[in-house]
Amino acid sequence: MALIVQKFGGTSVADTEKMRNVAAKVIREKKAGNDVVVVLSAMAGETNRLIALAHKVSELPNEREYDSLISTGEQVTVALLAIILDSLGYQAKSFLGFQVKILTDKAHKKARIELIDTKEIKKELKKGTIVVVAGFQGVDEDNNITTLGRGGSDTSAVAIAAALKADRCDIFTDVDGVYTTDPNVYAKARRLNKVSYDEMLEMAMTGAKVLQPRSVEMAKKYNVPVYVKSTFSDEGGTLVTKEDKEMEKEVLSGVTYDKDQAKITVVHVPDKPGVAAGLFMPLSERNISVDMIIQNASAEGYTDLTFTVSKKEMKEAQKIINAAAKAVGAKRVEVDDDVAKISIIGVGMVSHSGVAARMFKTMSNEGINIMMISTSEIKISCIIKRKYTELAVTALHDAFGLEKKK
Amino acid sequence: MALIVQKFGGTSVADTEKMRNVAAKVIREKKAGNDVVVVLSAMAGETNRLIALAHKVSELPNEREYDSLISTGEQVTVALLAIILDSLGYQAKSFLGFQVKILTDKAHKKARIELIDTKEIKKELKKGTIVVVAGFQGVDEDNNITTLGRGGSDTSAVAIAAALKADRCDIFTDVDGVYTTDPNVYAKARRLNKVSYDEMLEMAMTGAKVLQPRSVEMAKKYNVPVYVKSTFSDEGGTLVTKEDKEMEKEVLSGVTYDKDQAKITVVHVPDKPGVAAGLFMPLSERNISVDMIIQNASAEGYTDLTFTVSKKEMKEAQKIINAAAKAVGAKRVEVDDDVAKISIIGVGMVSHSGVAARMFKTMSNEGINIMMISTSEIKISCIIKRKYTELAVTALHDAFGLEKKK
Repeated sequence: MALIVQKFGGTSVADTEKMRNVAAKVIREKKAGNDVVVVLSAMAGETNRLIALAHKVSELPNEREYDSLISTGEQVTVALLAIILDSLGYQAKSFLGFQVKILTDKAHKKARIELIDTKEIKKELKKGTIVVVAGFQGVDEDNNITTLGRGGSDTSAVAIAAALKADRCDIFTDVDGVYTTDPNVYAKARRLNKVSYDEMLEMAMTGAKVLQPRSVEMAKKYNVPVYVKSTFSDEGGTLVTKEDKEMEKEVLSGVTYDKDQAKITVVHVPDKPGVAAGLFMPLSERNISVDMIIQNASAEGYTDLTFTVSKKEMKEAQKIINAAAKAVGAKRVEVDDDVAKISIIGVGMVSHSGVAARMFKTMSNEGINIMMISTSEIKISCIIKRKYTELAVTALHDAFGLEKKK
Repeated sequence: MALIVQKFGGTSVADTEKMRNVAAKVIREKKAGNDVVVVLSAMAGETNRLIALAHKVSELPNEREYDSLISTGEQVTVALLAIILDSLGYQAKSFLGFQVKILTDKAHKKARIELIDTKEIKKELKKGTIVVVAGFQGVDEDNNITTLGRGGSDTSAVAIAAALKADRCDIFTDVDGVYTTDPNVYAKARRLNKVSYDEMLEMAMTGAKVLQPRSVEMAKKYNVPVYVKSTFSDEGGTLVTKEDKEMEKEVLSGVTYDKDQAKITVVHVPDKPGVAAGLFMPLSERNISVDMIIQNASAEGYTDLTFTVSKKEMKEAQKIINAAAKAVGAKRVEVDDDVAKISIIGVGMVSHSGVAARMFKTMSNEGINIMMISTSEIKISCIIKRKYTELAVTALHDAFGLEKKK
């Protein structure tokens, strides 16, 4: 008997008919003799509907109230699934963040899980109950409802799997696994049978939408085997797991892209200690994540500083940076959101040389100008003009022969 | 400075535009220097939508999950109103049942409030915060979400007003007060300026939908002055308060009707001790309320027993009574849901004689047969054929001269 956590995304619970399909998958696992904890997202579109409501009444909705509002989507789906399971003769019980309880920090809209109390869940599992937990939500120490950010239900699922020491965490979604690139952009994309935590993390952080980065981080930290599977088919699937010899043989495991990027340049910044801190501290205080940062070589005591933020945080970042730039004595701030980030990822990079060169050559062959570059051990990212996104993805996928398993 | 509880019903918060109107009413009270606690229902239609979802997936939805599901409607409105107030520069904070906390018993779908912890609300009021509380919901001692039954937000509001010792509880709704009868049925209905708790309670229990009976009960118990007002107009209003001399001068204060009635007759029941208990205990165990009960005179050791239940509980009641009737040796069970209850209410009944006779005469003049009668000190109710409802209301309103204040 194993303990399985199953997570179903919004498209999997989009309506009551699809929920019956989810119930069938849950029951199959239960009938196989396993303990089952189900984690659900809101119905597809519901979170967006709630967000739209909040923005209809306020440009900058109070974040505590915003979280309380949008967390209702998951409350609806977990109750409905529990009702379905109950009506089919299976003991089931839904849990909200405060009922578990899933304790988070106070960062509304992007809270981090600090602790999961497993007492109540374990008590129910012992009774044979199928436990259905609302993803995406938690409570802070003062019982305020918090949410974990887009895709947060993945994190809920992995965190619960880790806390319960589950044998497996199945992430059911509308695709049948992790691909070498987005199949909608390039039909030659190939499904990976296995991918390492680190690669998956880089993929998720550079635009692959299949898993929330934080969930991968957590899976790695607690060594939770994560299966990405399709809700609508029993075929396929990708196992996200520890790195092994086989993975290292391949140079790359994927090409990703991210159009949710904006580039901000602070022009003519005095090049002296404390200036970078003066620019980036105010952003960090407002919880705005800065991704790539480039500082030009200094000339006559001045330099230019360029960095990227998520496009949806651009306006807020711009406001903050305008003030900060003035404070540090910079000349002006330039903003460009007509950009995209293209990344190549692979643990094989460590042992294969010339990967970066091949990437830059491929881009240059297609006449694509590279504006910014950043690298990690297993990833190279470039900022390019947005309109070249698909061209770059296709060219890199071909150049590195990702279509065929080597 | 006073402490005011304002409750707004579903039609008052039906959309974001209407919510802005609610915000204006709240702010006016706040600007007048008062502490304000707002209690909200779900958007009109939302609770029904959620109930329909539950019934789409199960004929008899698990009640714990059902409550968790339908309580989301209020969670949405309180968050939205708090967002609006915040965006207008007013400190506001929403509270859900578990956050207050509003402790109830475990009777899902019709829970009773046992205790309201006022600590957090008082703390916020002291800070000048407008407190917005989700009506209709609470939690039991195990943190399961419970709901208070149809119209439960009225009860939430009055209970909160009582717990906080508020100076007034304003119930804003889509009508501008309590009428002598339903103005939709009889245009000559007259708005009452004042009505006693007892009369209001009888009216609410016999079909007037303006206030939930339990809220009136609670207002009486804790002597909370309740104003019924229109959200959409500043005119009118009815004060529900203690009985006074003026009220006693009038014979009747209103005529009510209730079409949500079903009559169940258990035929040929052995007339011996324990039989009535054997019939009604199983109903009570399933939380089904029995309203009127009539037992015929016994003949040859047998009798017939007739009682009424709410129409929506008829099917369940019938199932239970069929089994119970067999167990006590009754011949058969007959059911009739083509009925309605007509009631006349007035504290003046106590001091005026011949009220019942005048009621029966009026019905008889119209050719309406009376199937069952029940009375209290200040109320007489009759069960009649459903199709005569409007006729009876009109005739009684005329017969007792309710159109004109005496």
